[in-house]
Amino acid sequence: MIETSYLYTEIFEQPAVLADLLSNEWAAVSNLAQAIQAKNIKHIVIAARGTSDNAGRYAQYLLGAKNGMVVTLSAPSLFSIYDAPPSFDNCLVLGISQSGQSPDIVGVLEEAQKQGQLTAAITNSTSSPLAQAADFVIDIHAGPEKAVAATKSYTNSLVSIAMLSEALAGLDEPSAELMRLPDAVSKTLELSSPISEIAHRYRFMKHCVVIGRGFNYATAFEMALKMKELTYTIVEPYSSADFLHGPFAVVEQGFPMILLAPNGKMNQSMLELAQRLKENQADTLILSDVAELLELATIPVQLPAELPEWLSPITTILAGQMLGMYLAHIKGFDVDEPRGLNKVTKTE
Amino acid sequence: MIETSYLYTEIFEQPAVLADLLSNEWAAVSNLAQAIQAKNIKHIVIAARGTSDNAGRYAQYLLGAKNGMVVTLSAPSLFSIYDAPPSFDNCLVLGISQSGQSPDIVGVLEEAQKQGQLTAAITNSTSSPLAQAADFVIDIHAGPEKAVAATKSYTNSLVSIAMLSEALAGLDEPSAELMRLPDAVSKTLELSSPISEIAHRYRFMKHCVVIGRGFNYATAFEMALKMKELTYTIVEPYSSADFLHGPFAVVEQGFPMILLAPNGKMNQSMLELAQRLKENQADTLILSDVAELLELATIPVQLPAELPEWLSPITTILAGQMLGMYLAHIKGFDVDEPRGLNKVTKTE
Repeated sequence: MIETSYLYTEIFEQPAVLADLLSNEWAAVSNLAQAIQAKNIKHIVIAARGTSDNAGRYAQYLLGAKNGMVVTLSAPSLFSIYDAPPSFDNCLVLGISQSGQSPDIVGVLEEAQKQGQLTAAITNSTSSPLAQAADFVIDIHAGPEKAVAATKSYTNSLVSIAMLSEALAGLDEPSAELMRLPDAVSKTLELSSPISEIAHRYRFMKHCVVIGRGFNYATAFEMALKMKELTYTIVEPYSSADFLHGPFAVVEQGFPMILLAPNGKMNQSMLELAQRLKENQADTLILSDVAELLELATIPVQLPAELPEWLSPITTILAGQMLGMYLAHIKGFDVDEPRGLNKVTKTE
Repeated sequence: MIETSYLYTEIFEQPAVLADLLSNEWAAVSNLAQAIQAKNIKHIVIAARGTSDNAGRYAQYLLGAKNGMVVTLSAPSLFSIYDAPPSFDNCLVLGISQSGQSPDIVGVLEEAQKQGQLTAAITNSTSSPLAQAADFVIDIHAGPEKAVAATKSYTNSLVSIAMLSEALAGLDEPSAELMRLPDAVSKTLELSSPISEIAHRYRFMKHCVVIGRGFNYATAFEMALKMKELTYTIVEPYSSADFLHGPFAVVEQGFPMILLAPNGKMNQSMLELAQRLKENQADTLILSDVAELLELATIPVQLPAELPEWLSPITTILAGQMLGMYLAHIKGFDVDEPRGLNKVTKTE
């Protein structure tokens, strides 16, 4: 019974934990935004791994496009292994980690504190070592996450970042768009039934490529990670631009491709790629609310058109979570405890 | 005849073009280093795609570990599509591109110039649009590169970055270690014959994972890209740390893994991974000069122990280039013009 798994429960409680986050954490986010502005900080260095690193990728695009920030995804091994830390000149150093336990991520924040720089943590555990190393802590309010594959902690990390973007833009409270998120998430979760059907078709797929660009570059990485963790398929994420610089060579007749293409500024680039994939007879699963794009798909999945592009990563990933879960179930795998993984990975 | 291909010629002329670069470009590199120091710049934003982005990844680790720089791999679509450029406060904005043609990369430098920030280009074409948008131009001296898959332009880009690191550290001329590179590259190219034999074993491999960490994280990305471009195999790069945060689940009996593990600070982390892979009966190709690591391999390839860890990416990638080339040849593919690709990819 998939419905009794932790993973299923956690995927479907996303509207609730998201509403929790929106109503409880605005003040903490505002305080962080004020500290950033008081120091005139224009540069954020993010330390994170796995799913949290994908949330960092969303921050790179969102805080870049909306708030003029240069966002660096850091190389934690510079701190933990080479012991040669860069100098964080007037940076915010931001750790993102559900558990707040990974020593390499904590190490980056400790180094930043030693250098007297501003630090913050986005975490599900306000008593964790990561939270203790941070000047400002944003609690993602996801509640206990027991499935090894992170779902609600990912979406709530994205929402924290969206809240930070709004606070940095000077808003006094979350915008109406942001407050629509719990509803939009619920609507997207209604795709559960069609996605559980479609999943059968991928039972014997060995590998595929997932494409997302701009704000949804992060979504491509996170969907690829869910598929790998849960279904043991080799799934590689790309932006459509990077994919054309070399990797396109792998496309042959029937090659499986997933395109994440909610309506937005990437439409043209996604249309061109979808056309080229069709000419090359690739097998495409396209998730979009753009009719022209859906027409080019082998398997179209219509996303509800609820949100502006910058918030679409928060709903688009849900399709990836559900596809990963249903495909793992069809293949007979344990969706809560994938082989070889633990919930907390303590890399040095 | 593989020996008459452009790719073969370009791989084996690497010692020569590398010597060219070392003897001709030190002054230009020094000038750039002085400009960086005159402005007290501690933050470099890199714009690049494909192979050049992998050179940027090397810069992230090397200039971080040796020169205390925070290095950001930029998101070019923030400039080309969202039209919402971040503010490059006291940054060097560095474009890396063999051809210097891609409009999105040129766009990042043009924006930096508009903001009055320092710009530089590492390129094989000093008359390209990218070179024109740069205050400082480093010519990689690779000579015409005709094979679509970049090889000598990659290694020479790495060497330019290594030279920049030394100039930033205050050296007046390239170090003795750097001057040993042409010899070390020649010695590593002598692996050609064993690698051409080993390649047959991978004739029917559909996908694999390549692991590298620290300075050789870039090598994992570049080897994966060569294998994809040339052999149409799905090859996914990971650091050993990221691989343990989720993707490890894909490992089953016989799963193909490539470990790039030249001697250095990553030995312990690579040993732990290699042991775990052995326990899980993965099929491992290990490139290393560390006896303990080679003993754990299904297929060990002994790298010549010529260089310190920070320069090892320049030789280690050669094994990847050769494996990609020989495997493509065995599979009957055109090594000079992979399907679906052009030499210059002009992404917006």
